[in-house]
Amino acid sequence: MKRSARLVEMTQYLMTKPHTLIPLTTFAERYGAAKSSISEDLAIIKEVFEEEGTGELLTLAGAAGGVKFMPKCGPDKALPVIEELCTVMEQPDRVLPGGYFYITDILGQPALMNDIGRMFASAFAGREIDVVMTVETKGIPIAYATAAHLNLPVVLVRRDHVVTEGSAVSINYVSGSHKSIHTMTLARRALKERSRVLIVDDFMRAGGTVHGMIELLHEFNAMVAGVGVLVESEDVSKEERLLHDYVSLVRVGTKDPGGRQLVVQPGNYFDGMK
Amino acid sequence: MKRSARLVEMTQYLMTKPHTLIPLTTFAERYGAAKSSISEDLAIIKEVFEEEGTGELLTLAGAAGGVKFMPKCGPDKALPVIEELCTVMEQPDRVLPGGYFYITDILGQPALMNDIGRMFASAFAGREIDVVMTVETKGIPIAYATAAHLNLPVVLVRRDHVVTEGSAVSINYVSGSHKSIHTMTLARRALKERSRVLIVDDFMRAGGTVHGMIELLHEFNAMVAGVGVLVESEDVSKEERLLHDYVSLVRVGTKDPGGRQLVVQPGNYFDGMK
Repeated sequence: MKRSARLVEMTQYLMTKPHTLIPLTTFAERYGAAKSSISEDLAIIKEVFEEEGTGELLTLAGAAGGVKFMPKCGPDKALPVIEELCTVMEQPDRVLPGGYFYITDILGQPALMNDIGRMFASAFAGREIDVVMTVETKGIPIAYATAAHLNLPVVLVRRDHVVTEGSAVSINYVSGSHKSIHTMTLARRALKERSRVLIVDDFMRAGGTVHGMIELLHEFNAMVAGVGVLVESEDVSKEERLLHDYVSLVRVGTKDPGGRQLVVQPGNYFDGMK
Repeated sequence: MKRSARLVEMTQYLMTKPHTLIPLTTFAERYGAAKSSISEDLAIIKEVFEEEGTGELLTLAGAAGGVKFMPKCGPDKALPVIEELCTVMEQPDRVLPGGYFYITDILGQPALMNDIGRMFASAFAGREIDVVMTVETKGIPIAYATAAHLNLPVVLVRRDHVVTEGSAVSINYVSGSHKSIHTMTLARRALKERSRVLIVDDFMRAGGTVHGMIELLHEFNAMVAGVGVLVESEDVSKEERLLHDYVSLVRVGTKDPGGRQLVVQPGNYFDGMK
C-alpha cells in the first residue's frame, strides 16, 4: 500500500475508533509497513487533526504503547456552532403554553448532536469516566453522541419501571420547574457498583432531574464524574438551584414577564471567552 | 498544504459529512489547490474507501457537480459483526420472566449502534428518504445512527402525549405480543406532509408497533420508504405477521416450549449469502 493510500486508511481507521489505544504493530501488520513509516504517517495525521481542531492524537511510547485519537471541539471551535444554534433557538414560536420550550426539531438533527457530543467529549476528556448516563427521552441522542466520542457505554434511566429489564431500583424526585413528584428507574444489571458516571441531559432549570440521577447513583455506590446539559434555564433563583458544578452549552432566559420573548446565549462552556 | 496532509484533511472532512454533495471548488478553495489535484486526491480516497468497505465516493460531473461520501457496510462486511452479536444475544440469562428479551446492554454500545446504523444506511442507500422515524425508547440509538450516516433528521414518536411538543396526532395500536392496546403520538410540527419515511426499531414480533407507525404516517399523508429492525422474532405465525417488507439484521427463535433457550441467527439482510 502506498503512503498516500495508507494515510487515508489510517485516518478513517482512527476516526472510527476514538479513545481506543491502537498499538503501532496493528498498523504495521495491517499495511505491511515498518513501524518507522507508521510513526511518520501518524505525525502527519496528528498535525492535521490538531490544526483543524478535529482532535488530538496521543502517542504512548513503550511496549504497551500505541496511539489514541481523542476527538475534540474546544470552545473556540464550538462557539460558531453554538451561536448559530442560539439564533435558531431564539425563534419566538418555540415558547409553548405553560412556558415549555420546543427544541425537539433541534434534537432531531444527528449532525448537530454529533457536534454537541464532541463538545462534551472535549469538556470531559480529562476525567476518568466509565459510562455516560441520561434519563429518557430527549437527552438520549446527546448521551449517545457524547459516549461515541469517548468510546463509552450509555446507561439509560427510565421514567417508569419497564418490565423488560429485570429487577430495578426506583427513586422519587421533585422536578424543579413544577414541584411535581416523578419516578425514575434503573435496572440493577445496567450499572456496575463504583462506576464513574458522566450525566448528560437536554435541559436543566433548577436541576431536579439531574439531582434525581445523582441520588440514583448513590443506590449503586456509583460516583458522578461530571454533568453536561445542552440548555440551562436562567429563570431560576440561586436558592432554587440544586446543582452548581456542570457544563452548559446554551443559556436561555426570558426578557418579558410573560416569557414569550427568549434570550438565548452560549452557556458556561464559553465563559471567559469574550 | 502538502498532498499528504491534504489527503488526511479531505478524508476526515468527507467522513464527517456523509450523503452531502461537496463541490470540488470547496476543496480547491479550502486547500488553495488546483481542481485537477483535488480530483487526483479524491481518486485515491475513493479507492481506499471502496477497498476497505468504508463506503462509496460518488463523483458528479458538471457545474452542479462535486463529490458525495456514502457510508457503506454491505452484508459481507456486516456478517462478522452480526455473527458476534448473535453469540452475545444467545446468552441464556437474556430471557426474562414473561418471555422478554434483555438487550439493553447491547443497545447501550454506541460503537455497535454506529455499525448497525451503517448497515441500515447501506440497505436503504438507494431509496429516496426524507426522515428516519422510530418510537421511543429503545429504537432511538439505532434511528440516530442510521440517520447520521444518511444525513437525515430523526422524527421520534412518543408513547404518551408529551406536553412540551404542542398539538399532536395520536393513534391506538394493538401490540402483537400481548394483544394489548397502546397509544402513540406525534407532534404536528414534527413531520411535514408527503415525507418519505424510513422506520427503524429495535425489536419486532408480529409488527404491531411498526404497523402503528405506518398508520400514523397516513395521518400526515406521509409514505413508508422502508422498514428496518435490529431483531425480528420468529415466534410468530404467518397469519399473525402484520408486515412482510422489512430488513432485519438478527433473527431470534426459541428451541424449547418454555422459551428459555434462544437460537439467534443473522437476519434477512444476509439471506442468500450462505
